[in-house]
Amino acid sequence: MSKDTSVTKAPIGVFDSGVGGLTVAREIMRQMPNEQIVYFGDTARVPYGSKSKPTIIRYTRQIINFLKTKNVKAIVVACNTVSAYALEEVKAELDIPIIGVVKPGAEVAASITKNGKIGVIGTVATIESKLYNKCIKEHNANASVFGTPCPLFVPLVEEGWVNDTVTFEVATRYLTPLLDTGIDTLILGCTHYPLLRNLIGEVMGDEVTLVNPAYETAAKLKEMLKEKGLENSASGQSIPHEFYVSDAAERFMSFANSILPYDVDTTKLVSIEEY
Amino acid sequence: MSKDTSVTKAPIGVFDSGVGGLTVAREIMRQMPNEQIVYFGDTARVPYGSKSKPTIIRYTRQIINFLKTKNVKAIVVACNTVSAYALEEVKAELDIPIIGVVKPGAEVAASITKNGKIGVIGTVATIESKLYNKCIKEHNANASVFGTPCPLFVPLVEEGWVNDTVTFEVATRYLTPLLDTGIDTLILGCTHYPLLRNLIGEVMGDEVTLVNPAYETAAKLKEMLKEKGLENSASGQSIPHEFYVSDAAERFMSFANSILPYDVDTTKLVSIEEY
Repeated sequence: MSKDTSVTKAPIGVFDSGVGGLTVAREIMRQMPNEQIVYFGDTARVPYGSKSKPTIIRYTRQIINFLKTKNVKAIVVACNTVSAYALEEVKAELDIPIIGVVKPGAEVAASITKNGKIGVIGTVATIESKLYNKCIKEHNANASVFGTPCPLFVPLVEEGWVNDTVTFEVATRYLTPLLDTGIDTLILGCTHYPLLRNLIGEVMGDEVTLVNPAYETAAKLKEMLKEKGLENSASGQSIPHEFYVSDAAERFMSFANSILPYDVDTTKLVSIEEY
Repeated sequence: MSKDTSVTKAPIGVFDSGVGGLTVAREIMRQMPNEQIVYFGDTARVPYGSKSKPTIIRYTRQIINFLKTKNVKAIVVACNTVSAYALEEVKAELDIPIIGVVKPGAEVAASITKNGKIGVIGTVATIESKLYNKCIKEHNANASVFGTPCPLFVPLVEEGWVNDTVTFEVATRYLTPLLDTGIDTLILGCTHYPLLRNLIGEVMGDEVTLVNPAYETAAKLKEMLKEKGLENSASGQSIPHEFYVSDAAERFMSFANSILPYDVDTTKLVSIEEY
């Protein structure tokens, strides 16, 4: 089958309410080194976790409109809140593939649990949406799902306190009741949380398997691009990823440089409300 | 002097990026029980602390346009970030009095310090703006000002952990270097922080006087209304304060009810981007 290389060489749009989605972009870079990423972080309007569903849908449409101007061949919603509240609504309006971070993590958790007890941690909005519960039960009808919001994790990560006694104490406070339910699988249902993976693992112990939706989403994306003939097979060249934000580009870059495997030297500002 | 009661009976507009400004509204209610308040909390776009100056000025103009539709006789900027970044710009555009929370707190701190060493705690944006430093030095040119951002305090207050060992540990971490500078006065430069007053006082000890800008701003407002003949002297009737938010009214009400001396039973949603 001959491929239209103008499409396969097109970038992948990845977006989040802020910086957290960079953990997903990082996994895509690791698993698909040939693909170019156009990342948008809505730093002017972060956090989405405390916003209502109509607001989140409106913001999502604006971001998709912006990414389409970059001719992306696929979109990754690297934000649990958007995946939970807006993905189904905008999917129907799109002519390119779009995937979120909720389903890939939920499917893996549903298939690896042995005792059928799965924990989910995330923002208040993600936990209240119960979308993880719904997705898990579609794959494992007998599973019991225990959700716990952990609102202090994001500010602790953004403060840089990722290996810290305070964060350990906060994690113990949030996670002990979850541990007591007897779960054997825990979904890190917020894009910042993979950065607390070691600390969360320490609190949960060896008996609980952590599921990282960033990793599972990148794996799912790879599979999907292959299926649809959209993979970029051209290799050997360095690919200039692009980063856009709606505000405060400097702070974004400093966070990006702390988690990405290379230096982000330019980030462009976008007036996202105009899209 | 005869007064135009349609003006003296007009409400006072009070706004913040979110719920924190309610500590200022609470002080106005305490000190001026005859005045009606129209409160706006920009809950769709909170927090302002991580946003850029042009964005904060744009948001501020929209909120003032909204408050003007409520025929307010004066405006209180119950937000340190807006007071620091946007107050001077919008003041010139207004035909009614407007006051912020920075100057009243700064003036009191400048006048009560004995050793001339003043600490300021607040969001990253407030501390980086150095506006407290500027205002303090206008009143006390010899003062030394020591600013420390405390980004975890707001999420801790919003989590309800106001008397908590974790919050005490975080406060100790943030405040010990400040204590070591030998300050005798500390400005609680973020509207959420008065809710941590006891805990902060415990860490700082009896030798350090805490300045609460919410209290000082209400006192300054009272003085200003009196001077301008704008006080509402009609008393004895219960005044229906009004609360508006740009998103998630339910969460706002639950926080409001936890800090105000009466129950807020209705909060209206405003599409603030249209103003």
